[in-house]
Amino acid sequence: MPKKAIVIASGGLDSTVLTYHLKSKGFDVHMISFNYGQKHLKELQYAARTASKLGLRHNIIDLSSLNKLLGHSALTDPFTEVPNGHYAAANMSITIVPNRNMMMLSIATSIAIAEQAQCIAIGVHAGDHFIYPDTRPVFIESFQQTITIANEGFGDLDLYVYAPYLHTVKAGIVAEGEILGVPFEDCWSCYKGGNLHCSKCGTCVERKEAFEIANVKDKIVYENYYNSETLHS
Amino acid sequence: MPKKAIVIASGGLDSTVLTYHLKSKGFDVHMISFNYGQKHLKELQYAARTASKLGLRHNIIDLSSLNKLLGHSALTDPFTEVPNGHYAAANMSITIVPNRNMMMLSIATSIAIAEQAQCIAIGVHAGDHFIYPDTRPVFIESFQQTITIANEGFGDLDLYVYAPYLHTVKAGIVAEGEILGVPFEDCWSCYKGGNLHCSKCGTCVERKEAFEIANVKDKIVYENYYNSETLHS
Repeated sequence: MPKKAIVIASGGLDSTVLTYHLKSKGFDVHMISFNYGQKHLKELQYAARTASKLGLRHNIIDLSSLNKLLGHSALTDPFTEVPNGHYAAANMSITIVPNRNMMMLSIATSIAIAEQAQCIAIGVHAGDHFIYPDTRPVFIESFQQTITIANEGFGDLDLYVYAPYLHTVKAGIVAEGEILGVPFEDCWSCYKGGNLHCSKCGTCVERKEAFEIANVKDKIVYENYYNSETLHS
Repeated sequence: MPKKAIVIASGGLDSTVLTYHLKSKGFDVHMISFNYGQKHLKELQYAARTASKLGLRHNIIDLSSLNKLLGHSALTDPFTEVPNGHYAAANMSITIVPNRNMMMLSIATSIAIAEQAQCIAIGVHAGDHFIYPDTRPVFIESFQQTITIANEGFGDLDLYVYAPYLHTVKAGIVAEGEILGVPFEDCWSCYKGGNLHCSKCGTCVERKEAFEIANVKDKIVYENYYNSETLHS
């Protein structure tokens, strides 16, 4: 019987490539996505599209009742604008949703135990460490320790957090996605959640940079950004 | 300015006494409760009653979309009966909702950070350690470490998990509640969630035992249980 993995799938690039990665490794993959009131809620449709293409089970966990309690993150607060600029810039800290990965991983753990899965997978990568403390290796290690203690003695629990991009930059994820044949147009990155990718917010800037470094052609169309390869492809 | 505490308030005895405890210590208390599809959802009305009596902010976090993903815990699965008997008995393990405390504490952490609270309070106690691994001191310590790492550098974070009953048996909580003047009839314990407390499930058995040991009169009426003090009070 194949090993089972619960993957936290936002519909973005990292977790979509991770989903293809898990499938290529023979895991039985169950995708879970979270609605925490993010402005770019449309990313969840992209997660659903990947699930449908790969024939995977997919659930959206509704945490929207939390939205009003999560403070003024630019990702959720209608009165705080999503900043433009490079991901690693100081002003990006307002895109932090406090303790978000820990919340999502804790819920994924509950589901994994209920389904006797062996693996919880998350697409955190080295480029995030500047800004999000809950993407660092030290966090993943500590989280692993805590869930092991929290669920000790529960059946034959042998559950591990799998974060294969923990030491990889985003360009490396793009390169892997290219090898795995990921349709990159199925990945939504923009934090603003408009009709097209804005090309200016942290995740858009990061995405463009990653494809350039990896020397891979992206198929999405950006707003306000002349991308000759995109336009002619 | 008083210190702020986010308390995980189920509407049960432990967290209700804890809420009074925090108030008596001068905390600005924000109560949060969770709907995870438990059969004894009526406990949340009891939490709301305490909030109203004490004039505290209270939010119910809706995790009901998780219900179908949490497996066959007797607390949530309509096809698995809540067992009768003593809390510490082997058959009580089917009342485990996997990783429940970790989920609730992780969400409480997010809210605490957003509200710049200093304290996350939870009513876990020594009597739970037999059956629920996520009520043990070793879990609380590990969780504290993980949230500190997960949110490092986020403002002037100085957040601690406060679990004052970690080494106390339930009778001790009853004794403290008596001193604090907690109206025990505002605490719902029964896992079955019927009209009256059933007197037979793990939490009912535990509650009766705790009041007997503490030599305190409980004011609730049990079904199928002749309690002379209750009937004549």
